[in-house]
Amino acid sequence: MKKTAMIYEGKAKKVYRTDDDKLFVMEFKDDATAFNGQKRGTIRDKGELNNKISAVLFEILEKNGIKTHFVKLLSDREMLVKAVKILPLEVIVRNIAAGSMAKRLGLEEGLELKRPVLEFCYKSDELGDPMINAYHVLAMDLAAEDEIRFIEETSLRVNEILKEYLIKKGIVLVDFKLEFGRFDGEILLADEISPDTCRFWDAKTREKLDKDRFRRDLGGVEEAYREILSRVKV
Amino acid sequence: MKKTAMIYEGKAKKVYRTDDDKLFVMEFKDDATAFNGQKRGTIRDKGELNNKISAVLFEILEKNGIKTHFVKLLSDREMLVKAVKILPLEVIVRNIAAGSMAKRLGLEEGLELKRPVLEFCYKSDELGDPMINAYHVLAMDLAAEDEIRFIEETSLRVNEILKEYLIKKGIVLVDFKLEFGRFDGEILLADEISPDTCRFWDAKTREKLDKDRFRRDLGGVEEAYREILSRVKV
Ligand SMILES: Nc1ncnc2c1ncn2[C@@H]1O[C@H](COP(=O)(O)OP(=O)(O)O)[C@@H](O)[C@H]1O
Ligand SMILES: Nc1ncnc2c1ncn2[C@@H]1O[C@H](COP(=O)(O)OP(=O)(O)O)[C@@H](O)[C@H]1O
Ligand SMILES: [Mg+2]
Ligand SMILES: [Mg+2]
Repeated sequence: MKKTAMIYEGKAKKVYRTDDDKLFVMEFKDDATAFNGQKRGTIRDKGELNNKISAVLFEILEKNGIKTHFVKLLSDREMLVKAVKILPLEVIVRNIAAGSMAKRLGLEEGLELKRPVLEFCYKSDELGDPMINAYHVLAMDLAAEDEIRFIEETSLRVNEILKEYLIKKGIVLVDFKLEFGRFDGEILLADEISPDTCRFWDAKTREKLDKDRFRRDLGGVEEAYREILSRVKV
Repeated sequence: MKKTAMIYEGKAKKVYRTDDDKLFVMEFKDDATAFNGQKRGTIRDKGELNNKISAVLFEILEKNGIKTHFVKLLSDREMLVKAVKILPLEVIVRNIAAGSMAKRLGLEEGLELKRPVLEFCYKSDELGDPMINAYHVLAMDLAAEDEIRFIEETSLRVNEILKEYLIKKGIVLVDFKLEFGRFDGEILLADEISPDTCRFWDAKTREKLDKDRFRRDLGGVEEAYREILSRVKV
């Protein structure tokens, strides 16, 4: 597998073509941003930690029947993935009120939701990833009706699988963001699953073990990411 | 029917009990507010015009099988309605991108949507009526699953009925907001349907014939409301 031209550099990763046009290499960076790019910094070793955490979680999901873009780890910071056409949607699943949702709806951070909440956001840096719903997705032609249904069901299953796996490791899955892409007529779970894209709380102390430590200047950011990797590893 | 104690004074209407505890009187005021109460004013005769416009539109909906709270007109500014328990939800249906949706999603005002878009907002003045979806409604216990389904279906039918009726009167139904309430184990369409709660455009000129004239200081506000009444009347 030969990594060729870089085709995209995002806030947290670089994406490269390979000599197989069905495969991309994703390289995880240490760069950290928050609040739609307004806050910037670096988290030492984040690239490596997120690469490895994502690999573990994608493998667990695959074992449980979720189709993902993950092929294999290539190096400390690189993974080989299927080259999908990313849908311009972020899917957020929440078990506990936190962050923007708690604020918008006047809920106390930490409130256990009666049922998981799924939200769609329109992936657009200029617009600040506004929340939308399935009607907007259809009206704006971002995905088809059966794709939306599949993505909702898959996201809720991902939630159940990860919640159950993580609680055994002493981690509460508060919420997380997923991205999906089209590949050979199928929808695959893509992107990453890491402390950058999930809220993880320690099950005993409720200590934050995720990017909120960076967002809110809580310190111990790298240590939290490292703790997540050491706990999720099989 | 005797009007007794006022039980609620809102931004646009007063609600009174009657000697029948299943019935309320809604009295329409000339007061106008916009941007969650930040802009305030009066629109001459608005109360009377909205009362009459709402009555006509509720009657058309009833004829088409939609169950509403409307009982009858009592006077120029008053209508008799069934005393429902309002759900803390606003349902918005949109046929054309305008207002907050156009802005949030970077769409040009006037863009015809491929399909109607339905949005739920959580009715809360303090929070500024934030947009939510059916998952939030369930997680926050604002309505039951079958109620949500009924409300979505009913709102989309209301859209079809009104769109078809209004276009014959030279009015394009751009978008509108509905409220629903519980009454004797049923869900009834409640509140009002007026230029305060709908966007109406002239079908030929695309001139705005609704509260956007007040919001955007376009002048001719009362005239627009009066024009709507004269066109919708059967
Ligand atoms: N399997 C894949 N195929 C193609 N693109 C992908 C795949 N997985 C993730 N991506 C995209 O690659 C980019 C990853 O870089 P990232 O730094 O996360 O970008 P961003 O700043 O846009 O969030 C994202 O745009 C993501 O949607
Ligand atoms: N049939 C009904 N029974 C009880 N309450 C109703 C009914 N129809 C509308 N309402 C409520 O009465 C109030 C009408 O006053 P309004 O000025 O629109 O209030 P607001 O400023 O809260 O929008 C609203 O709170 C509305 O939800
Ligand atoms: Mg990203
Ligand atoms: Mg009102």
